[in-house]
Amino acid sequence: MEPGPRSRPAEPGPCVSASPSAGAALPASGAEPGSRPAAVAAVLPAGGCGERMGVRTPKQFCRVLGRPLISYTLQALERVCWIKDIVVAVTRENMEEMRNIIQRYGHKRVSLAEAGATRHRSIFNGLKALAEDQPDGKLTKPEVVIIHDAVRPFVDEDILLRVVIAANEHGAAGAIRPLVSTVISPSADGCLDHSLDRAQHRASEMPQAFLFDVIYDAYQQCSDYDLEFGTECLQLALKYCHTKAKLLEGSPDLWKVTYKQDLYAAESMIKEKISQEICVVVNTKDEESVGYLLKEALRNELNCINITSTPLDLPGRDTQNFLMAQCYSFIHVNVVSSDSHETQRFLSIIEESSLPLLYPVVVVLVCFLDFTLVPLTQKMESLVWIRDLAKEVKKSNVLLSGLLINHSQLALTV
Amino acid sequence: MEPGPRSRPAEPGPCVSASPSAGAALPASGAEPGSRPAAVAAVLPAGGCGERMGVRTPKQFCRVLGRPLISYTLQALERVCWIKDIVVAVTRENMEEMRNIIQRYGHKRVSLAEAGATRHRSIFNGLKALAEDQPDGKLTKPEVVIIHDAVRPFVDEDILLRVVIAANEHGAAGAIRPLVSTVISPSADGCLDHSLDRAQHRASEMPQAFLFDVIYDAYQQCSDYDLEFGTECLQLALKYCHTKAKLLEGSPDLWKVTYKQDLYAAESMIKEKISQEICVVVNTKDEESVGYLLKEALRNELNCINITSTPLDLPGRDTQNFLMAQCYSFIHVNVVSSDSHETQRFLSIIEESSLPLLYPVVVVLVCFLDFTLVPLTQKMESLVWIRDLAKEVKKSNVLLSGLLINHSQLALTV
Repeated sequence: MEPGPRSRPAEPGPCVSASPSAGAALPASGAEPGSRPAAVAAVLPAGGCGERMGVRTPKQFCRVLGRPLISYTLQALERVCWIKDIVVAVTRENMEEMRNIIQRYGHKRVSLAEAGATRHRSIFNGLKALAEDQPDGKLTKPEVVIIHDAVRPFVDEDILLRVVIAANEHGAAGAIRPLVSTVISPSADGCLDHSLDRAQHRASEMPQAFLFDVIYDAYQQCSDYDLEFGTECLQLALKYCHTKAKLLEGSPDLWKVTYKQDLYAAESMIKEKISQEICVVVNTKDEESVGYLLKEALRNELNCINITSTPLDLPGRDTQNFLMAQCYSFIHVNVVSSDSHETQRFLSIIEESSLPLLYPVVVVLVCFLDFTLVPLTQKMESLVWIRDLAKEVKKSNVLLSGLLINHSQLALTV
Repeated sequence: MEPGPRSRPAEPGPCVSASPSAGAALPASGAEPGSRPAAVAAVLPAGGCGERMGVRTPKQFCRVLGRPLISYTLQALERVCWIKDIVVAVTRENMEEMRNIIQRYGHKRVSLAEAGATRHRSIFNGLKALAEDQPDGKLTKPEVVIIHDAVRPFVDEDILLRVVIAANEHGAAGAIRPLVSTVISPSADGCLDHSLDRAQHRASEMPQAFLFDVIYDAYQQCSDYDLEFGTECLQLALKYCHTKAKLLEGSPDLWKVTYKQDLYAAESMIKEKISQEICVVVNTKDEESVGYLLKEALRNELNCINITSTPLDLPGRDTQNFLMAQCYSFIHVNVVSSDSHETQRFLSIIEESSLPLLYPVVVVLVCFLDFTLVPLTQKMESLVWIRDLAKEVKKSNVLLSGLLINHSQLALTV
């Protein structure tokens, strides 16, 4: 039974793998024996016009939760530290928009090349930008190059590593999937000529990877007909360099956003994933505190969701543990309700991070007050303070809501 | 440029086509010349176990907006009057669940057959139930049989009619789509043997249709190997009856719900479609009335959404115009706020219809009051009345909310 997509969506932030020099840090899930080369780059052809989507915007620029699809894909690649450079081939008319996307979403390792009229020409242009003999060579020629699609945002490090290692060993490698529909060959009169045995065929998906010299050589020898009408890079490596690509089974999340329904699916998958984690931010290390008890109570209630907790007041880098975890939903527990300073500090950390650039960050502020002890005016002041704060941080894409809880009646189950 | 999916989702209600005796009532969108046979049935193999979905529930029974996927597909077929019988092949263990679905969602033309261990065996069992020589022959043998998938809920009458007419002429016909990915053939060692020319191949989708005698004959001659490992009905017609199927280009909405992301996509597509229409229900025929002006104002503001209006108090069948339109969002304008009788009558019509069985029905009740004339107590009473009414109708899946508008300040733009 194949699992449903489980990996995190394309997200920015710290690199999920070991350091670039760590050689073949193989994940558990079945990468081949072999070693990863030191220098890996990626080429993303993104010159398509999205005609299959039925919308004007090319599909790689279509927005998913307000953010262009290609930005998710770029960040999926950027999360993998050992991919040094990412060359995106875009048409001249989309060059400016692509530059804006790079700046707006903080992409760091991306260079642009001009797309050609076809997919193969775009890839070739991307490869040329990586080849040594380019005059403005800011980029260095990699040993292995990954070719991926801008419209497959859910690629994870596991499959990237597996294709790179296999390419290093075999010269070329690519992800495949079982066919969903039977493939047939029509005759000239629009009738069935024959159908293919589904068990003998596979869908060729992305990512693929190649020894740079193999695929660059293939493209240099390539006929105009291939550049114009070909669709399969693995086939070019076979035809021109006699390199038989290794085929690796990929997961269903490698699917290509092609039609309108795929955009809907991508949106729902991202929503599901960013809501799978809640971080309880507490203002004490005391494990008997309300915050920790709340975390335990939530764990019992919401067993599909990953609940973590972190104290806010650790010194130095650790303060930002919750940023490292790429979490977008927070419960900030403020036991001393008058301690607005701490809440503001937490919100500032969030606002200044890259988190709200990418998705709305949800913060539920929980304040405890003993209603029998505090006057009504203090309660009202607290409410007004939360409301004003919520208005303020909303400008930075942080959605704050507040709960005042009567401490004297506090039940420790939620 | 191919349009995005536009057709309505599978919905119950009145038949969208001409009467069954109307011969070939061709829709505008390119059905072939030819005529539709009088007797058409459909077979839906639904014995799959959903292993690709990564969930326990077979995918045809997975819920989309609370309703099993297969129910959407059945209603898409039931909307087409000229499909007389629909035979669903389900496994013995799902027979009871399927019976419950048929009853719960009011499916009328559905019979059950027992699924076999493979898709072909299930289809064969479905065909046997339609063949004349069955002892408990409640079903009549059709001239043409449609074979469709339970997990393709967005099939519309246009493609069904086209495959049926083509099958009547050619003996067999099926929907095809361009390939999304290149198809390759792996060698025994898991490397690329060759890739297929994408332009020369197509994905074979559903629906397909056959002269009943052709496909039944093919299944009767069929080898055990074909029944066990085959995937393509068109291929059986070719192999055993030398019938070359006509291939017809289908729309992207024919896609097959296979993985978890497809369920998400189906849900979003259905949501989008049921929110594309708002009906303003008014209590007067007076075209100068607030209700009509509201409709015009909404039309100007919401130009992607189809806004209709209908008076509530027409006699006889016409009262239910809004039910015929399969609309799920209503604005009920009550100019005389004290006329609760009328609102209740409208809500009863909705509750008693099949609408809230299928989706939540949203009703916004707009009442006008001149706040300068009515006392505060009357306003409060109106609010309490709406709240109580909302609680009551929520039990029937009708989501009511109310707006009290100060009539004296009424602006005629919304």
